[in-house]
Parts: sequence; structure tokens; C-alpha cells
Amino acid sequence: MARERATSLKDVAAAAGVSISTVSRLLNGSLDLPAETKKRIEDAILDLNYHPNPHARRLSRGRSDTIGLVVPDIANPFFATLVAAVEAEADKLGLAVSLYATLNRQGREVAYLQLIERNHVDGLIFVTNHPDNGQLAELINRTGKVVVADEDVPDANAPKLFSDNERGGYLAGKHLAEHGHRNVLFIGGAEAMISSRRRLAGLERAMREAADGSANISKYHGEYTIEFGREAGRRFLAEGRPPTAIFASSDEIAIGLIEVLRAQGVSIPEDVSLVGFDDVGPLHLFAPPVTAIRQPVRSIGQRAVALLLETNWQESPGSFRETLLPVEIVVRKSVAPPAR
Amino acid sequence: MARERATSLKDVAAAAGVSISTVSRLLNGSLDLPAETKKRIEDAILDLNYHPNPHARRLSRGRSDTIGLVVPDIANPFFATLVAAVEAEADKLGLAVSLYATLNRQGREVAYLQLIERNHVDGLIFVTNHPDNGQLAELINRTGKVVVADEDVPDANAPKLFSDNERGGYLAGKHLAEHGHRNVLFIGGAEAMISSRRRLAGLERAMREAADGSANISKYHGEYTIEFGREAGRRFLAEGRPPTAIFASSDEIAIGLIEVLRAQGVSIPEDVSLVGFDDVGPLHLFAPPVTAIRQPVRSIGQRAVALLLETNWQESPGSFRETLLPVEIVVRKSVAPPAR
Repeated sequence: MARERATSLKDVAAAAGVSISTVSRLLNGSLDLPAETKKRIEDAILDLNYHPNPHARRLSRGRSDTIGLVVPDIANPFFATLVAAVEAEADKLGLAVSLYATLNRQGREVAYLQLIERNHVDGLIFVTNHPDNGQLAELINRTGKVVVADEDVPDANAPKLFSDNERGGYLAGKHLAEHGHRNVLFIGGAEAMISSRRRLAGLERAMREAADGSANISKYHGEYTIEFGREAGRRFLAEGRPPTAIFASSDEIAIGLIEVLRAQGVSIPEDVSLVGFDDVGPLHLFAPPVTAIRQPVRSIGQRAVALLLETNWQESPGSFRETLLPVEIVVRKSVAPPAR
Repeated sequence: MARERATSLKDVAAAAGVSISTVSRLLNGSLDLPAETKKRIEDAILDLNYHPNPHARRLSRGRSDTIGLVVPDIANPFFATLVAAVEAEADKLGLAVSLYATLNRQGREVAYLQLIERNHVDGLIFVTNHPDNGQLAELINRTGKVVVADEDVPDANAPKLFSDNERGGYLAGKHLAEHGHRNVLFIGGAEAMISSRRRLAGLERAMREAADGSANISKYHGEYTIEFGREAGRRFLAEGRPPTAIFASSDEIAIGLIEVLRAQGVSIPEDVSLVGFDDVGPLHLFAPPVTAIRQPVRSIGQRAVALLLETNWQESPGSFRETLLPVEIVVRKSVAPPAR
């Protein structure tokens, strides 16, 4: 098979039997090495036909040729897929990825953001899954070289990359409204998070357009977890399930919800309709196959790497932009007209 | 909430605003620092009531308080869950985890194994997903401080931790045999890998016991991927599907297989029975819910961390042992007697 990726600093380091930062510092002229070591590195550079990565030039202060990726929870397939996409894209560019799982705890997030200041990584792709109390934004604004992806850190001045959550909510609402639903339950993440706010705003816009004020939207806010999906399912049943349709705003929530409904003999879509969000898991094999808004997870990963490399970090922070990636609705069999 | 984990070197480093290795080297007496920096670190140690981690003592040469975890592909939920389990266990012990995704390429595996020699990590949990050509074993034997988990590197002298794959294959075969199946298709990974060999050996043992030589087992070998599952499904259909039951030896294979069978109108279990392996994905929500051998993925992660910390690495390598973790069969609705 043809060699598809460029030789990286890492390859040179491996061939010369030294650390990446030794090679990097030799190239920057900032390190005096024994002649023999120096020769080994220079030989490796020639042998491997290494050229410093042009994409990484703008991140050049640290030149570890390593980017950091901070995610909340790798066991969640959405984040796992995002990580894999970042790894694949970085690999194409000859960059290494250091991956850090925060378990969604702010203390860990702070520690990892500080890696930039210590030059352990040249830049970070940062993904959080909880509202910020201001500390994350402050740190991001101080260090720079951070791309905020998937979920917002509202006061951070950084390039930001999200799915078009509002549009996703709108597509879900429109699909439900077209099937005649006017009484819909929204199951979201924390109320303060933009993913949740925007998905709800889109749902509300669609229902407004369709029902001209006569629609009723109830809301449960919690976490994007299977456990919260189960909790929401129990609450929905306990409240006598007046809504005729549910918009479950993550795969994990949908899985927990379906488990509970099924255990109580509530049929989808005969008794209640369901639209999901993410479409990373094998929803197409579920009984019934679940209609869902599909997030472009792999594109988020690819674009986040590109943004990190292409951003001019010397620009005034006011000019950083928010990029929205398109979502789509994948129609399967979990939506029907309301039960009489 | 109560603080559940011990203060780590990382916490001290964060509080003092220095790198982990600076703290570590100060404690080892190997670094002279400005008096002011030294005082900041010492204050942090007192403030946080830090005690060097007793669990990590045996890994003490590097004392980065960081363990490395090398996995093939994070997008695969089996590996994602394993990673999350290692992260959670390490966190309890006050250790950081550096995670490396190899994309299942040997060049990357080699580079990451070399991190131990460079003291970037104190030890590694190593997970591969392809047969070794001898290079991995050589490197593991040279560096030490590597726990081989999930899949074997046959010539490596290292503590090894696997699911009881043979028992899993046996349970699958026994369940199929009890339903009257005598003609079974095994869809496995690469023929040379122990996961594949042992799952097949268990299946063969069960069929031998039940059918006394009259059973017929056909085999497809490939990769533990959705794509290979689809390929296997197409081949099974093209061959006129003489087997009455399939043992798909990973969740990913089962997903690809079910997709193809469903698209061609082949019903499970009416037309063909199916037993899966892993049970990490939401197989319980599939149509029909899939009977599968469940791997103890979280236990593999926890035990791998424990093995890394508890192994006496000065022992002669001959005394390293292989540990097998128990599997179970989760019976759902994808197995029925053979169609007439």
C-alpha cells in the first residue's frame, strides 16, 4: 500500500531513538547535543525525507507536533467517534494526538487546558459537556490555541465548531408536526447548555409554525446519559404520558427511554412517537428503527483539526467565528400519527 | 461531595503551577530549582496533604504518575468502554492516563511502546487487534512494565489478561446445540489471533459434546468490523446459507451481518439463529433482541490497571501469568430451533 501520510517529527524521533522534543529543539537550534546523537537525528531526517509540517507552522511556538484533544467521556459512542475522527485527520497530517478524558469534571478540564502553557501540546480541541462557571473561559482566553467543539464555553474567545443544533430541533419538530403531533415532550441536557437550548428553540419554532400557538411543549432537563433517559421514561409514565410524541435529544437518552417504555409495554410508535438525536449508535437495527437527527460527528472531528491548524492565532480574538455543520433527519419507523 | 480519590502528583503540579515531572524530580532530589519555585511546590504538597502513591511504588523508576493505554480503535465501543474503565480506575488511584490510538497499525504500536523507555509513562496497558510478526513481542520483552490485555502478543513475556474466550465459544455452541443446531457458521477475526482461535475451539468443543462428530462448523475469518460483518452476510447469502445458525464473534460483525440479512428479508431467528459476542452495544433493543456472550469489559480495564501496579517487575519473566476473566451468555430472542 502506498504511504499516505507525511513523515512526522514523531517518525524521525522513533528512527533516531530520541524523544520528539529533542528533535524539535535540535531543529529550532535550541539544544546542544552530543555529535553522535545529532548525526543520528540528521540521518533520520535525510532517510525519511522529513520536511517540517507546513500545516503546523502557525502552531509553531511549541512544535511538539502534538495536538491535544479533551473529551468528557470516551465510553459515550458520540465522543468515541469524534475522537477517532480527530485521530484519523491528525494522522493524515503527520501529527500526534494526546487524548485526555475529563470524566466531565472541571478540575480535570482545567489541568488539561494548562498543558498548552507548558508546551506539552501545540494546541487543544476542547469538548465539555457541562455549563462553565467562568473558569474554563478565562483559561481558554489566557492560553489561546484552543478550538471549542460540540458544546459551547460561552465566554471563551475561540474558534467554535458546533452541529447546527437549532436546525436539528426544527427538523425534529417539523417531522412530528407533519404527523399531527401538537403535544410534545422534549428531553434535553442541562438547561444552560447551548446544545440543549438550541435544539429546544428549533423544536419550538417548528411547532409554532405548524400549530400557530396551539402546540404544547413540555421539557425535562438532565444529562445526555442512558441513566437520565431511564429517569425521563419513568417520569413520563408516572405523569400519565399526556404528550403524544417525544424528542429525545441524544442517543443515550433515547436508549434509556426505550428500555423503560418497552419494559412497561408502551409501543413506539403506536402509543407514542419518538425522534432521537446523534444517530451514532445502531438505531437502524432497533425495534422499531428510530427516526433521528444525524450529527456529522466525523466532520466535526476533521474540521476541528483543520480549524486548529488554519486559525491565525495572532488575530485579535474578536474575529474568531462560530462554524455550524449541517445536520439531517434520517426517517425510519418511530413516528406515526398520535394515538387516539 | 466527598473527595474520593487520593491527591496525586498532578494535583500538586497544578496547584504549584509547574509540570508533573518538575514535582517528581524535586521529590527524587534530582533537580535544583529556584527557592521560590521550590517553596511553591512544598506549600502545595502540604496544602493538599500529598503522599506519594503507594500503589505506584513498584513502577517508580519513571514516576511520571502516568500510565499509558494503547488501543487499536476508539470508535469501536468495546475499546471505548475499556478505555473508560481504565480512566476511572486510574483516577481512583490518583494516576493520569495517556491514551494512544494505533489505528491498529504496527508502526504506531511500536512508537508507543517506546514511550516507556523514554520515561514518558511509567507503564503501559497494551491492546492490539492483529497478529504480531515478532516485533511487538521483542519490544515488550525489552521494555517490561507492559500488561497485555484483551488480545495476545504470543511471544511477549508479560502479565496477560483476557476474557475467557474458549468458555464464551463453548457457551455459544452449547446454546445453539441445545436448540438442535448441527450446522453452524463461525464468523471470526484473523485466524492467528487467540480471541478467534479460542472462541472457535470452544464452539467446536460444545458441538462435539452435543453431536458426537455429526456437527458441521464452517468458518469465515476476517476482522472485528461492521464492514467484515456485511461481507460475511453477503457471502452467507451467496452460498445459499446452508448453516442453520451463526456465531458472530463480535458486536461489530453482528451489526454488519444483521444489516445485510435484514435487507434481504432473512428473518432472525425464523430463518437463521444468531449468537453474538461482546454485548457492549444496545443489542437488547435490536429486533429481535440478540442473544450474546457478554465480555466483562469494565473488569478487564480495572484489572489491567491493578496488574500494572501490583506486578513485581523485577521477577523473572517466566513467572508472569495469564489471567482469564469470566464471560456469561445473555439469552434474548435470536435463537430458535432450525427452520425446516
